[in-house]
Amino acid sequence: MTDPTAGGEHDHDRHDDVICQIVAGDLDAAVVHRDDRLIAFLDHRPVFKGHVLIAPVHHVDNLLTLPEDLMQPMLGLARRMSLAVIDGLGATGTFSAINTIVSQSIPHLHFHVVPRTKGDGLRGFFWPRTRYAAGEAADYAARIAAALALVDSDDA
Amino acid sequence: MTDPTAGGEHDHDRHDDVICQIVAGDLDAAVVHRDDRLIAFLDHRPVFKGHVLIAPVHHVDNLLTLPEDLMQPMLGLARRMSLAVIDGLGATGTFSAINTIVSQSIPHLHFHVVPRTKGDGLRGFFWPRTRYAAGEAADYAARIAAALALVDSDDA
Repeated sequence: MTDPTAGGEHDHDRHDDVICQIVAGDLDAAVVHRDDRLIAFLDHRPVFKGHVLIAPVHHVDNLLTLPEDLMQPMLGLARRMSLAVIDGLGATGTFSAINTIVSQSIPHLHFHVVPRTKGDGLRGFFWPRTRYAAGEAADYAARIAAALALVDSDDA
Repeated sequence: MTDPTAGGEHDHDRHDDVICQIVAGDLDAAVVHRDDRLIAFLDHRPVFKGHVLIAPVHHVDNLLTLPEDLMQPMLGLARRMSLAVIDGLGATGTFSAINTIVSQSIPHLHFHVVPRTKGDGLRGFFWPRTRYAAGEAADYAARIAAALALVDSDDA
């Protein structure tokens, strides 16, 4: 699916991509983990201390273009990193998130893993919530399901 | 890894688990997708309309206990669902998140996919941010890396 010889991280403007700069060693970061496919390092402006970013070593723009073969490694590392911040920092749980296009501050896919503790004040994205009018949820579900069928036929 | 004959969803108290109730057909939901492994339906109190929850059909408590063989399907469906809400609802991007233990409102793993539009007012989890004192980031990184090594030796 992805041609590893295509040199993904060289195909775009690295000036805006601090993750490719960290991977290349051109920018310092507090690296927590690195393997052939993924790098994990501390966000330098954490929501809470120990806030980790997990990213593909080879450039990937965002979740929409994430190759299939990176999915298990990426979610697997998010799981292990959640255990690591719970065990290593005494956190109670974690908040894991991916911003795609909107609020995506770095144009290189990154998965946030943030240590959480009960009463830490993070309300996350849970407020405020809205409500559907009668029949409106069914309409939204149908529109999303129809679009998903088209996505899947394009993928096939 | 997971014994499918163990009847995962029957091993815990379903009274608190609305996802197992939806899977069993005991609770209505606006279902967007279902296959052998995953179900996706609308959050009935959405952050924005079209807010989808993706969950394993067989009960999984949280990200910490997610079986390896569900990781690619789950992140893959999150990718496809992001494309679907962008295409189907005219969203610009998405916010995808997993709450683990803290702020996890349903004791059954679920991956939020929320449609985003520029200027939609969602500040997400980005404010406020904090800072590390000199040397503190390296200390946090070392503690997380040491804990990750123990997690990985336990997994092996």
